[in-house]
Amino acid sequence: MRVYNFSAGPAMLPIDALNVAQSELTDWQSSGMSVLEVSHRSKGFVACAAETEALLRQVMNIPEGYRVLFLQGGATGQFDAIPLNLTAPGAKVDFFKTGQWSTKAIKAAQAQQLDVTVVADRAESNYTDTPAADGFTIDSDAAYVHYTPNETIGGVEFSYIPQTGEVPLVADMSSTILSRPIDVSRYGLIYAGAQKNMGPSGLCVVIVREDLLGHARPGTPSIWNYQAMAEADSMLNTPPTFGIYLLGLILKWVKDLGGLSAMAERNQAKASALYGYLDASDYYRNPVAIDSRSWMNVPFLQANADLDKAFVEQATAAGLTNLGGHRSVGGMRASIYNAMPLEGVQALIDFMTDFETRNG
Amino acid sequence: MRVYNFSAGPAMLPIDALNVAQSELTDWQSSGMSVLEVSHRSKGFVACAAETEALLRQVMNIPEGYRVLFLQGGATGQFDAIPLNLTAPGAKVDFFKTGQWSTKAIKAAQAQQLDVTVVADRAESNYTDTPAADGFTIDSDAAYVHYTPNETIGGVEFSYIPQTGEVPLVADMSSTILSRPIDVSRYGLIYAGAQKNMGPSGLCVVIVREDLLGHARPGTPSIWNYQAMAEADSMLNTPPTFGIYLLGLILKWVKDLGGLSAMAERNQAKASALYGYLDASDYYRNPVAIDSRSWMNVPFLQANADLDKAFVEQATAAGLTNLGGHRSVGGMRASIYNAMPLEGVQALIDFMTDFETRNG
Repeated sequence: MRVYNFSAGPAMLPIDALNVAQSELTDWQSSGMSVLEVSHRSKGFVACAAETEALLRQVMNIPEGYRVLFLQGGATGQFDAIPLNLTAPGAKVDFFKTGQWSTKAIKAAQAQQLDVTVVADRAESNYTDTPAADGFTIDSDAAYVHYTPNETIGGVEFSYIPQTGEVPLVADMSSTILSRPIDVSRYGLIYAGAQKNMGPSGLCVVIVREDLLGHARPGTPSIWNYQAMAEADSMLNTPPTFGIYLLGLILKWVKDLGGLSAMAERNQAKASALYGYLDASDYYRNPVAIDSRSWMNVPFLQANADLDKAFVEQATAAGLTNLGGHRSVGGMRASIYNAMPLEGVQALIDFMTDFETRNG
Repeated sequence: MRVYNFSAGPAMLPIDALNVAQSELTDWQSSGMSVLEVSHRSKGFVACAAETEALLRQVMNIPEGYRVLFLQGGATGQFDAIPLNLTAPGAKVDFFKTGQWSTKAIKAAQAQQLDVTVVADRAESNYTDTPAADGFTIDSDAAYVHYTPNETIGGVEFSYIPQTGEVPLVADMSSTILSRPIDVSRYGLIYAGAQKNMGPSGLCVVIVREDLLGHARPGTPSIWNYQAMAEADSMLNTPPTFGIYLLGLILKWVKDLGGLSAMAERNQAKASALYGYLDASDYYRNPVAIDSRSWMNVPFLQANADLDKAFVEQATAAGLTNLGGHRSVGGMRASIYNAMPLEGVQALIDFMTDFETRNG
């Protein structure tokens, strides 16, 4: 029996894609081999990787002039790789600080000797909101501007794309990518760990504007050198083949469901249902400002926090798993990525109602 | 129908492990979730990673005083990560140059500002042998000595562990690990991409002596900082969970077959059969010095090189796949990693005999 899995990542994946992966795990494309066993340089896998990239370009409507890279090391790896590729030591960069992930990105940029200006720090709200769209000033001399459109831990999401003029905008879209249409042309660089909406952990996707290639510092690790990786079609070294394959299956699922517009409708419906329930409740609440609420990660608190453990345990028993809040936040968190159906959110709401009735 | 897959990596995996992975791909441990969908911080997965490490320690007989790290970025990533973790810029290091992989490691070390001395360069043999065990001098001031016990492309393998005195020995064991018992205590650091004997690409295992931790340069990417990763049990960021899981399954298979001693017997028998056949043949030959031949990768040439394409095509049709030689070497190459049974090597020999009869 499949459960409704509310994990923040690695997260629930579309069962249709998992079923395909399962059915062909020991015999891929009638090759007598698993996709796990084929050389990344074999015709079959090269075609698979090319198809995955083509599907990503199609589904995300990625314009000409952008390169797609399949890398390793996760978004955390990119916290270091982006400074190394885009800047010289001492360069000025602007960062939004809206929670734990953007804070980690800032620390890594500083460790790579960047002169970081925090253009907006939402400490005053305890990171429960985003800055106003006109509430910050970008330095036109900055090498780039970095933000985290969705803070997975806080459940805080930008409802707008920051205006940065001519300064390239860099976004950690780990918890945003594929959740809705994204105007890629507004970005200099988008990066995302796969383990939310794209597939298994261990694959990191980078979408980078071509003019940002070719500026890597000496000593930039070759596996993260965007120019070198672009020239090698992401196969300068052995890529995470299973992740690329599974991303392809998941992109087919997205496409079959109607693409990112359909995905946005689906995700908005789920989020509306859950936030609507929380806002109408006297027992549960979500701490995030209404205009900054995440479609993907919904933290919530109950009036009696002593019952958090019981809530999570009973939910698990009811087939609603991984609802514990992040250890730094407490309470509960429902991550409702693409693969979570509306029925899962409704089941959660039903459980919450029942739990409140029994304990509230 | 399963084929005999002679790919150099990603390579053939034990069907027993693949069958387990397939059977539980949509429902792991009766959780109602795939192992691909569970948080790396969940109880289930933390236990899985701990069990994988414990099995690796048991199977490899890793002594106390060594840490096991599950990283990303492959062995190529470690070409950069090792200098960053073990040395300051300008440090002296000694390298063996025995083929393409050690050459790449040297270039990366130089890019990380190391003062590289090549203590043995087998260019004179066109990289078809290893240096004599007393044919080199280690600088006692070197920060470490690096070698590649098995050069996957050339099919060249050290039959001994180089004596380096007090200088830590660092080894790229991507094509060696798990193939036989290894005296880990002789090494300062062992690293290996998983996609030969350990599992899927995207996982890199590092086994490092504890005194080598804690010396990372400022700016070392956090996902490669050995000390930080050791403290975080390899979960400073989201690890490649599926790779760790599959490595666990493969280690169980190794253990069930009798461990690394049994694996060595199996591998030696396969290599002996194939080299014996090649040496007895007037039509085929292996170009590597007898004392330097790899158990894992067996390149071979036929008298009429014009027939190489036909050989590979007909072999593929006969269920013997991925026998094309590396593009830099030509000819053929049979990679016979742990998962390849003796029957596969015998089938190859039978095919070679038949091919010679028809064409020789």
